[in-house]
Amino acid sequence: MKYTKYLSMITIIALTSIGCNENKKNEQSPLVLKATQNGLKAIPTNESELHKIINNPQNPVTKDKVEFGKKLFFEPRLSKSNLISCNSCHNLGLGGDDGVSSAIGHGWTSNPHHLNSPTVYNAVFADKQFWDGRSPDLENQAQGPILASPEMASTKEIVVNTITSIPEYLAEYKKVFKTDEVTYEKITSAIGTFERTLVTPSRFDDFLNGNSKALTKEEEKGLETFIDKGCVSCHNGYALGGTMQPFPAVKPFKYSNIGNFSSKIVKVPTLRNITETAPYFHNGSSWDLSETVKIMGETQLGLDLKDNEVQEIVTFLKTLDGRKPIISYPILPKETSQTPKPNLDIN
Amino acid sequence: MKYTKYLSMITIIALTSIGCNENKKNEQSPLVLKATQNGLKAIPTNESELHKIINNPQNPVTKDKVEFGKKLFFEPRLSKSNLISCNSCHNLGLGGDDGVSSAIGHGWTSNPHHLNSPTVYNAVFADKQFWDGRSPDLENQAQGPILASPEMASTKEIVVNTITSIPEYLAEYKKVFKTDEVTYEKITSAIGTFERTLVTPSRFDDFLNGNSKALTKEEEKGLETFIDKGCVSCHNGYALGGTMQPFPAVKPFKYSNIGNFSSKIVKVPTLRNITETAPYFHNGSSWDLSETVKIMGETQLGLDLKDNEVQEIVTFLKTLDGRKPIISYPILPKETSQTPKPNLDIN
Repeated sequence: MKYTKYLSMITIIALTSIGCNENKKNEQSPLVLKATQNGLKAIPTNESELHKIINNPQNPVTKDKVEFGKKLFFEPRLSKSNLISCNSCHNLGLGGDDGVSSAIGHGWTSNPHHLNSPTVYNAVFADKQFWDGRSPDLENQAQGPILASPEMASTKEIVVNTITSIPEYLAEYKKVFKTDEVTYEKITSAIGTFERTLVTPSRFDDFLNGNSKALTKEEEKGLETFIDKGCVSCHNGYALGGTMQPFPAVKPFKYSNIGNFSSKIVKVPTLRNITETAPYFHNGSSWDLSETVKIMGETQLGLDLKDNEVQEIVTFLKTLDGRKPIISYPILPKETSQTPKPNLDIN
Repeated sequence: MKYTKYLSMITIIALTSIGCNENKKNEQSPLVLKATQNGLKAIPTNESELHKIINNPQNPVTKDKVEFGKKLFFEPRLSKSNLISCNSCHNLGLGGDDGVSSAIGHGWTSNPHHLNSPTVYNAVFADKQFWDGRSPDLENQAQGPILASPEMASTKEIVVNTITSIPEYLAEYKKVFKTDEVTYEKITSAIGTFERTLVTPSRFDDFLNGNSKALTKEEEKGLETFIDKGCVSCHNGYALGGTMQPFPAVKPFKYSNIGNFSSKIVKVPTLRNITETAPYFHNGSSWDLSETVKIMGETQLGLDLKDNEVQEIVTFLKTLDGRKPIISYPILPKETSQTPKPNLDIN
C-alpha cells in the first residue's frame, strides 16, 4: 500500500462512520442479503481490499503516481489554450462534473454530439469509459479529451513538451515511471491513476457493510423498491452502473432529439452522487431526478412508475451522496522559456 | 486571531525557515537596513502583526468568512455559464493568475482592452485594485469581474439567487454575516476576505526578518542593484508594488500598441512570485522577465540597464518566489431546483 495519503483518508472516514462489524456475514439483515444477491456491492472499508479493486496491475497505483496525476488533472497547460484542465469538466468540487448539459471546451465549443460530462468520481468502478464504451479504462480514457478539438484541443507534442520543459515535472515523471523516455501515453496514464483514487463511500456502503442504522426506514424502503422494480438489473456493482446496456431498451426516449449520439449500447451512469450530477442522461436533457427515474422506468423497464415509487427510489438515491477524498489544491511547477505558449485561436 | 487555519500555516512555514531572531534590530546587516530604509517591507512572521496588516476593520477577517469566501472563490455557479470562477483567471496553482496575455471569459471573449490578469497572491498589500486603480480594496474589486460581460457575465440577481437557493450557502452566509438579508456586496466581500489571506512569504522576507543566510551573495548583490538602480522607488512596501504610478514615465513603452488601455496612472504590479506570473505588463506583452526588467529601466527610470545589471535584478527577483498557503479544494454544496441554471449564450 503506497498511496495511503489518499486512500487512508477515504478509509478513515468510512471506517469511523460504520458502527458494526462488517465481518459478521451470518448476521446480515435480509435487506442487505437481498441487495448483495441482486449484485449491489459496497465499497470496502478495508484499504487493501479497496486497493485490489481500484488498482491496475498494468499501471500500478502508487503514491508518487497519484500525486503526479493529481497535478496533471488540475494542469491547464496541457490544453492548447493553457486554460482548460481535466478539472474544468470533471470539477471535483461539483460532484466530479461540470453541471452543464453539453460539455464546453476550447473556443467555447459545445460537445458536437451534445454529450454530457460524466462524473469522474467512482469512474474507476465502470467496465468501460466514455458513453459509447470505446475505452477500456481510465488511463486510456484520459488520452482522449486532451486531444479532442472541442475539449482541450491539445496535441501529443504540446503535452510531452510541456512536461519535458518543466524541470520539476520531468523529475517527477522519471521518478514515477523509471524511464527517461517521455510519452503522451505514460503522462496521461498518471491522470488515470489519480482518478482511480476518487471513490466516495456513502451511507449506502455503511449499510451494506453492516451498520444497520446507516439508513432510515424510508431509505431502506427505497432500496427495496429500487431492487424490486428492476433498476438494479443495470445499476449494480460498486458503481451502481458502469456496464454497457441497450438504451432505450423497451420504449422510446422522450429527449432522443437532443444531440446526435447514435450508439445503441450506452454506458450505464453510476448512481453514486447522483443528486450532485444533474443534468441527467448522456445528452444532459433532464435537470430533474424524479423525471429521470420515471423516464428510465419507461425506456428501460417498460414500467409506468407511480409517483410514490419514484419518490421512494429518489429517497434511496440520496443515500449514495458520498464522502469525497480531501484534495489539497496543487501548486503547479513554473514553466520555462521552452514550455509551449498558450494558443487561444479557435481554429 | 480567528483565521488560524490559513495564517498559522503560512506562519509556521515562515517561522521554521528563519534561523535568527528578527527582534535583534540593532544587529541588522547594512543591506537589510538599506532595504528597509528604501521602503522594502518583510511579511511579518508574527501572526498577530500580519493580521493587522491584512485585516479590514470594516469587514473583519474571520475564520468562517475565509472558509465561505474560499468556496465562493472556487464557485463557477456565480458565473452566467456556471463554468467560470475567480480561480479560472486567478489560478492559485499557477502563481495566482492565468498565464495568458489577455484574460479569457464568458464565450471565449478576450479582455476588450487586452488586459492581463494580475496575481491574486499578495494583492492584499496593494493600495488599490485593478490596473487603473479604480477599486479601493479586494472586497470592492471582487464585485467587478463577476458582473463583467467578458469575464463571468453574471448578474447580482443570479449571484444572490444562487446563494439563497442552496441551503448550505444560505446557512453559511447567515452565520458569517449575522443577517438574513442576502446582498451581492456581502457575498463578494467574503471573496475579498479569503483573498486577504493569500500572502506568500519568501526567502526575501526571511532575509529582512533577520536570517542573514536566507540569500546567497549573488542574491544580495541583486538586491543592492535593485535598490541602487531605483527599481525600489515604485516597487516597495510589502507587495514590492501596489501603488499608483505614471506609466510610461520617462520614455515610450515599446509594446504600447497592444490593447487600448488608456490610463496614464497604472498600478505597480507586485514583484512577489514574478517568475510564476508571465506574461508581463498590464497588456501581457512580454514573456521574458529580463526583457521586462530592461524595458522598465527605460520607461520608468530612463536607464539603459546593462545585461549584467538586468541579470542581477532577475537573480534578486527569484528570491520573491513565495511559500503558498495550503488550500484544500472545496467540496461545494449542491444546488436545488431553485438555483439559476447555466446560460451558455454568448449574448
